[in-house]
Amino acid sequence: MKKIGVLGTGAVGRTIGKRLIELGYEVKMGSRTSTNEKAVEWVNSNGENASAGTFEDAAQFGEIIFNCTKGEITLEALKMAGTGNFDGKTVIDISNGLDFSQGFPPFLTPQYANTNSLGEEVQKLLPGANVVKSLKIVNCEVMVNAAKSGGDPTMFVAGNNDGVKQEVISILNQFGWNDIIDLGDITNARGMEMMLPIWTRIYGATKNGHIAFKIVR
Amino acid sequence: MKKIGVLGTGAVGRTIGKRLIELGYEVKMGSRTSTNEKAVEWVNSNGENASAGTFEDAAQFGEIIFNCTKGEITLEALKMAGTGNFDGKTVIDISNGLDFSQGFPPFLTPQYANTNSLGEEVQKLLPGANVVKSLKIVNCEVMVNAAKSGGDPTMFVAGNNDGVKQEVISILNQFGWNDIIDLGDITNARGMEMMLPIWTRIYGATKNGHIAFKIVR
Repeated sequence: MKKIGVLGTGAVGRTIGKRLIELGYEVKMGSRTSTNEKAVEWVNSNGENASAGTFEDAAQFGEIIFNCTKGEITLEALKMAGTGNFDGKTVIDISNGLDFSQGFPPFLTPQYANTNSLGEEVQKLLPGANVVKSLKIVNCEVMVNAAKSGGDPTMFVAGNNDGVKQEVISILNQFGWNDIIDLGDITNARGMEMMLPIWTRIYGATKNGHIAFKIVR
Repeated sequence: MKKIGVLGTGAVGRTIGKRLIELGYEVKMGSRTSTNEKAVEWVNSNGENASAGTFEDAAQFGEIIFNCTKGEITLEALKMAGTGNFDGKTVIDISNGLDFSQGFPPFLTPQYANTNSLGEEVQKLLPGANVVKSLKIVNCEVMVNAAKSGGDPTMFVAGNNDGVKQEVISILNQFGWNDIIDLGDITNARGMEMMLPIWTRIYGATKNGHIAFKIVR
């Protein structure tokens, strides 16, 4: 079973990490410091296959790496992890650059929206890695359990390497996603990242955080 | 039965107009000139309740007005129609500002995206009107026949007047939309307009123009 690095100790990273442990993977969670309180607590409650360290420790450990850092610090965190540590690896990018400076709902960080995306910036920063954008169109409980939405929703992948996307799709299948659309190369991260504004507004209107999108066709 | 003005003679305007005629409404299609070829052909094939004229003619005629102009010319077209002609009326805004200057898929016109929307600009230009953003998250054949998607998809409305939104929802019901989420005020047009980038990419990946979105919940 492959070793997986999870960057970021927020709700997304802890939830993804916990589910991967349940599925039998070895998981190392990475953050700025190896003594991050949330990471230590996560390790203590997730058994012998759970460990924690710095961003660099997690990047070196993982054969597959989930980027669960907040979009605002993603590029900085990847640099702290050592960009060479991602060479030849699969990076599943779940980040979104959100700007809450004007309250809720947030808007997207303009330099990563519309004519660009954070997924593309991650791929540019890690030219030796195979970056696949996925998952960040639902909240983390739905990410790891699609049925939590109440139905059989659609998930997307975007990335430059078809074989790597198949590897990611097999993990998504383990997370309960049965309806997956391959949008094409990493520039298609733009479309996925621009779904956040409607997600936040549907959430605002329905107060349901477990919504998901089904592409009817 | 109410009189409806339809601004724009493209596929969206003609399809919406035809369906409204079938539903028993009187419809006047508006364009730059009263002799627009597409409008004349549309009138000739849609019976006695169909007529055409200038943007101004259609705006004066309609108790409800559908804005089906391309986003790039929407504000100019509304000015040509005479902004006072919309006072006290319901305006259903189906426009999207798309920039094809770098090919397909297009990006959104930056000044109307993310921190703004065309729906909000239309409401600002027509302060006496009740603008409701809706429909432009699917292609025009699905707009007027939700089941054409192959399922029971979700539609959104956004606007400042609850009573007017109910009036619009009743038209959406006649178009076959049974699952409608009221997102709130017109600023929520931002979320809807930012769905275009994922629509164009799903279309690019699937070549299916009849896709629609179901919010699983």
